[in-house]
Amino acid sequence: MPPVKIVPRLPKGMRDFLPADMLKRDYVFGVVREVFHLYGFEPLQTPVLELKETLMGKYGEDAEKLIYHAQHPGGKEEVALRYDLTVPLARVVGQHENQLTMPFKRYQLSPVWRAERPQRGRYREFYQCDADIVGIAGMQADAEIISLIVAVMRRLGFPQFNVKINNRKLLTGMGQYSGVPDVQLGDLYRSVDKFDKIGAEGVQKELVERGIAADVVARMIELITARQPGLENLDFLEDIMGSIPAAAEGIRELRELAAYLNDADVPTRNYEFDFTMVRGLGYYTGPIFETIISEPNLGSVNGGGRYDDLIGLFRKDSLPTVGMAFGIERIIDVMEILNLYPPDIVGTVVEVLVTAFSPETRSQSTRLTAVLRSGGVRTELYMQEKNLGKQFDYANKKGIPLVAVLGPEEIVDGVVKLKRLTDGTEVVVKQADAAGKIRELLGS
Amino acid sequence: MPPVKIVPRLPKGMRDFLPADMLKRDYVFGVVREVFHLYGFEPLQTPVLELKETLMGKYGEDAEKLIYHAQHPGGKEEVALRYDLTVPLARVVGQHENQLTMPFKRYQLSPVWRAERPQRGRYREFYQCDADIVGIAGMQADAEIISLIVAVMRRLGFPQFNVKINNRKLLTGMGQYSGVPDVQLGDLYRSVDKFDKIGAEGVQKELVERGIAADVVARMIELITARQPGLENLDFLEDIMGSIPAAAEGIRELRELAAYLNDADVPTRNYEFDFTMVRGLGYYTGPIFETIISEPNLGSVNGGGRYDDLIGLFRKDSLPTVGMAFGIERIIDVMEILNLYPPDIVGTVVEVLVTAFSPETRSQSTRLTAVLRSGGVRTELYMQEKNLGKQFDYANKKGIPLVAVLGPEEIVDGVVKLKRLTDGTEVVVKQADAAGKIRELLGS
Repeated sequence: MPPVKIVPRLPKGMRDFLPADMLKRDYVFGVVREVFHLYGFEPLQTPVLELKETLMGKYGEDAEKLIYHAQHPGGKEEVALRYDLTVPLARVVGQHENQLTMPFKRYQLSPVWRAERPQRGRYREFYQCDADIVGIAGMQADAEIISLIVAVMRRLGFPQFNVKINNRKLLTGMGQYSGVPDVQLGDLYRSVDKFDKIGAEGVQKELVERGIAADVVARMIELITARQPGLENLDFLEDIMGSIPAAAEGIRELRELAAYLNDADVPTRNYEFDFTMVRGLGYYTGPIFETIISEPNLGSVNGGGRYDDLIGLFRKDSLPTVGMAFGIERIIDVMEILNLYPPDIVGTVVEVLVTAFSPETRSQSTRLTAVLRSGGVRTELYMQEKNLGKQFDYANKKGIPLVAVLGPEEIVDGVVKLKRLTDGTEVVVKQADAAGKIRELLGS
Repeated sequence: MPPVKIVPRLPKGMRDFLPADMLKRDYVFGVVREVFHLYGFEPLQTPVLELKETLMGKYGEDAEKLIYHAQHPGGKEEVALRYDLTVPLARVVGQHENQLTMPFKRYQLSPVWRAERPQRGRYREFYQCDADIVGIAGMQADAEIISLIVAVMRRLGFPQFNVKINNRKLLTGMGQYSGVPDVQLGDLYRSVDKFDKIGAEGVQKELVERGIAADVVARMIELITARQPGLENLDFLEDIMGSIPAAAEGIRELRELAAYLNDADVPTRNYEFDFTMVRGLGYYTGPIFETIISEPNLGSVNGGGRYDDLIGLFRKDSLPTVGMAFGIERIIDVMEILNLYPPDIVGTVVEVLVTAFSPETRSQSTRLTAVLRSGGVRTELYMQEKNLGKQFDYANKKGIPLVAVLGPEEIVDGVVKLKRLTDGTEVVVKQADAAGKIRELLGS
């Protein structure tokens, strides 16, 4: 009985990464990991499947509809695919606290699942890349997170980017000063969050529609759009609202944060205070950050902030926490747009193709391949029975930079001919010296 | 309203990997990837969720019960979590064939899900690590796969291991020669597969119970237990069964394979022919391999073989394929048992802890931290307000090898005191020279 054929396809919003894409992704992941380690963040990994009780009720109703549930035949536990890496972190801290030393500086670089409507640049399985510091209430931790963001962005080669910084406490203080009723502070955040898209007028209109008095809204807009350079912005706001406790506390925190950023040698051109920046998530309690690539305008690539209450869901007492997440899928795309991948990230890992001159010389080609690999050269052995021209075509198509030719003459002389495909350079070397010569030809 | 507390726990069979474990896992993954690249295998990644139609009907009924199904509210597609990495590879080859250059040598290092009954060393989410060559029918590809297995095992530091090699064609030939009816060849494989556990007598008994004549079974057992050294085993079998086409073909393939392994300089102590080794999966069509750590007896850590028909499920014509999978979770455990992790894989990424002498010196500690990180030293800045003794305790507990002390005197002199915790060595150096000195103290 011939087997039934299956049309090879994927569920909506899912992707395969073929090697050329994977090599770029692995490059970005590698740089990110290296910088995280430099800053003393340690790797954590949580499982893809979590109990539903862990995930549900943390993200809001609209988000919960996007969570994938999972089950196996006869299974009794209610499980689901993780929606982000932050709630799992909070669970881990509650679950393994005896094994963790505080502060717990961890990163996780893992996929998450959200059944959003697929569209260009938005997928249902995508990687998140989080770094958080658990257990430090002071602004030194917030500064450490911002330093880390800036270091990663610089190491990836972004010529221009900007970490916008605000503080939920300050926003609350502004609302209170302006006369926004406490119960409407949530509405306030939600509207201001759209500032980038709908502008001051749009936010103003929306807040009035939500039933906040026009003069209250006007005062609020004036505060959030205050634009003095650098720390003068904080002086300006303190003069106005210094007597509102939430505002005073928010301003003090931002001053402290700025001082640590200065100590940490973070360039001032890479961060600024922007009081129109809110961040959607409900759980932030202090400073919030969002990193923008503005010239050209390529949008947000990182977001984060302080959320001192979340871990308290999984533990008797909460622990102060600050963290950030790179929109790593967006970064991978933007690096392509800005041409930031190093030239040696080509479509293949292979450095040299060892050709097979004829069936009789296969044995010698196999031997040479073993010698090159022992010498640390990433080597592919050509295994099809085709003529040398076809073998060169294969190397060209795959983007392999070098080809090794081992014909009867070379075999007799114990040598090999190496050809660099980019410029046609040919050299003949002893087989024992080939690995070294290849390094030289690759300029590495 | 105070939030409801949630007991932090995981679904059955799921694990968190805290940093100390992750560093070991990442070490193993890193070595494996490096060797795969050396052999010219390229990275591939497929999504966790596949359409059910892709997975179902490939693994057998018992296995299918272990597959996790997934769904989101309102979702219409039938999706499931991947069960292995081989069927997704076959789908990828069918789906993206225009973008792939043959042969396609790919590896994938990813988790899979199976709802097996959890027990010691068996989990419901675990990593698989596969390397396959698609598009080459000749034994050079099988030899390449076995060379790769041996290279990975050696690079990981396993002092002793053995790749057992058999051939499904030869097993079929043995069955035919012995008089096993063709329809019972499946039963034959299943029973012989238990040879390691139940021995020759057990297999013999089981085959007789399955209704195969006692004399047929006896002939079969004699063939599979033939134990001449090395290639003589093949001569011995050829003398007996050379006229059975399947046997002759199987023997020819194994001879060719052995010749390529010899060319590739694979040590003969690391592989042997073992005709009692079957491999459970139904889809193998030619040579099969299984790697065993036998002294001490730690079981199987790798399995694979040739499966020339599977890709044909997703494509008009199938493509010859040979591959292997490391039992990477088992390898991670066995490396612990055999103490194979390098001594620098400690419980932390941090190389030096920069202490904070007092609140007044925090600013200088932050500066020094920035300098060390610029110098490539993986540095943690101490952020709590505790005395120096407590800070040293913290470094000791985390396993950080070096501590940097920056008190008022050091600050005045522009120096820093470095202490190596393993032996108490103390040196005082200029802050600008600290990164170099740290490298020296770490012996790296």
